[in-house]
Amino acid sequence: MLDNLAWLAAGAVPDFDAHFQAEFEKLVLWRRDERHFLPDPVSEQLFERLMDLTCFAPSVGNSQPWRFVRVDTPMCRDAVIANFIRANAEALADYKGERAALYARLKLAGLQQAPVHLAVFADEKTGQGHRLGCKTMPEMLRYSTVTAVHTLWLAARAYGLGVGWVSILEPDEISRILETPGDWKLVAYLCIGYPCSVENIPELERKGWEHRQAECRAVLRR
Amino acid sequence: MLDNLAWLAAGAVPDFDAHFQAEFEKLVLWRRDERHFLPDPVSEQLFERLMDLTCFAPSVGNSQPWRFVRVDTPMCRDAVIANFIRANAEALADYKGERAALYARLKLAGLQQAPVHLAVFADEKTGQGHRLGCKTMPEMLRYSTVTAVHTLWLAARAYGLGVGWVSILEPDEISRILETPGDWKLVAYLCIGYPCSVENIPELERKGWEHRQAECRAVLRR
Repeated sequence: MLDNLAWLAAGAVPDFDAHFQAEFEKLVLWRRDERHFLPDPVSEQLFERLMDLTCFAPSVGNSQPWRFVRVDTPMCRDAVIANFIRANAEALADYKGERAALYARLKLAGLQQAPVHLAVFADEKTGQGHRLGCKTMPEMLRYSTVTAVHTLWLAARAYGLGVGWVSILEPDEISRILETPGDWKLVAYLCIGYPCSVENIPELERKGWEHRQAECRAVLRR
Repeated sequence: MLDNLAWLAAGAVPDFDAHFQAEFEKLVLWRRDERHFLPDPVSEQLFERLMDLTCFAPSVGNSQPWRFVRVDTPMCRDAVIANFIRANAEALADYKGERAALYARLKLAGLQQAPVHLAVFADEKTGQGHRLGCKTMPEMLRYSTVTAVHTLWLAARAYGLGVGWVSILEPDEISRILETPGDWKLVAYLCIGYPCSVENIPELERKGWEHRQAECRAVLRR
């Protein structure tokens, strides 16, 4: 249960001060995608709190299209890991020479170690929200689901947990493994747990895969 | 320029305390999608700071696929507003009876008042990130762009600004109006400015369009 629901309902107005702004900036800068997890479990209490907060993400038309599957059984986990291994081998085959060697040295999943696996889907046919804002941009339901994933990610970090978003998976195969309804589209497969160590610089930068590019920060004017 | 870049580079480890966790929870609960803006301008300094922070969002393969267009000229703004009016009329035509009357009473854009219009695109053909994590899920480039939008949204709120995400627009038409490169796909069109008032409950809930649903919070187990 969230602490601030009564505060919200009472109409209180937050006054975020310079200290909070600076701490929030640290959270964004330091967030990291985590692939190295300790075996320590995540308490049910913390997991439930994070899920409560996740569902306060924005959603188009208040559609709340996010759907969650926690993957705990060895049978399902092994099938997901097998799918990752296959998709990763196929991805590696697309690279040549130095880039292939570099790819092979990256740690691209923490699926074996992470105590929590959470698959997040968008319900593409939900009646909630009555399709408001979806007529010209039906992808808004998936985008709303991404804001839920990102809310969870930041909140988890604020509580000392790490999150890794694994996209080297075949979405239709994951849906089949998890036996989810046909209208649910996989948006994210997340590994969640306590990180082994703290890295301030992304692994992809440290290992020379890709660096921050100033051009991406450009703002065109029209 | 962000205050905490040196802190990050120095390898400092944040220790988010219970006070920060509670304040972050308030930010998430209270975020709101804003449609009612004061004419007060947003300072260049604050806008630039928000953009700096936005670009520290997570991205697949460190691809940083977000591309930004700030829309300032009356010619472009008027064309965007005309597109909204047309798309909104077509959306209204899909509803009948009470629901149509309700739709017509909603304020679905703050385009006329908002001092800042920011269009956010995903560069679907970027070479950055070398397509890592995109082979089976090419949509990850758009999803990464959504996390940038959401980072901007939360940061803006922490600094007292409101953000409205307008999706009742035809993406291809917006690209044409803004003369953006062919590989850029519109992900979000944002209105940004100081809000007229503070509303703790979403307008869509207050006006009876859609409410928060407990079922969406369910977590299936597999």
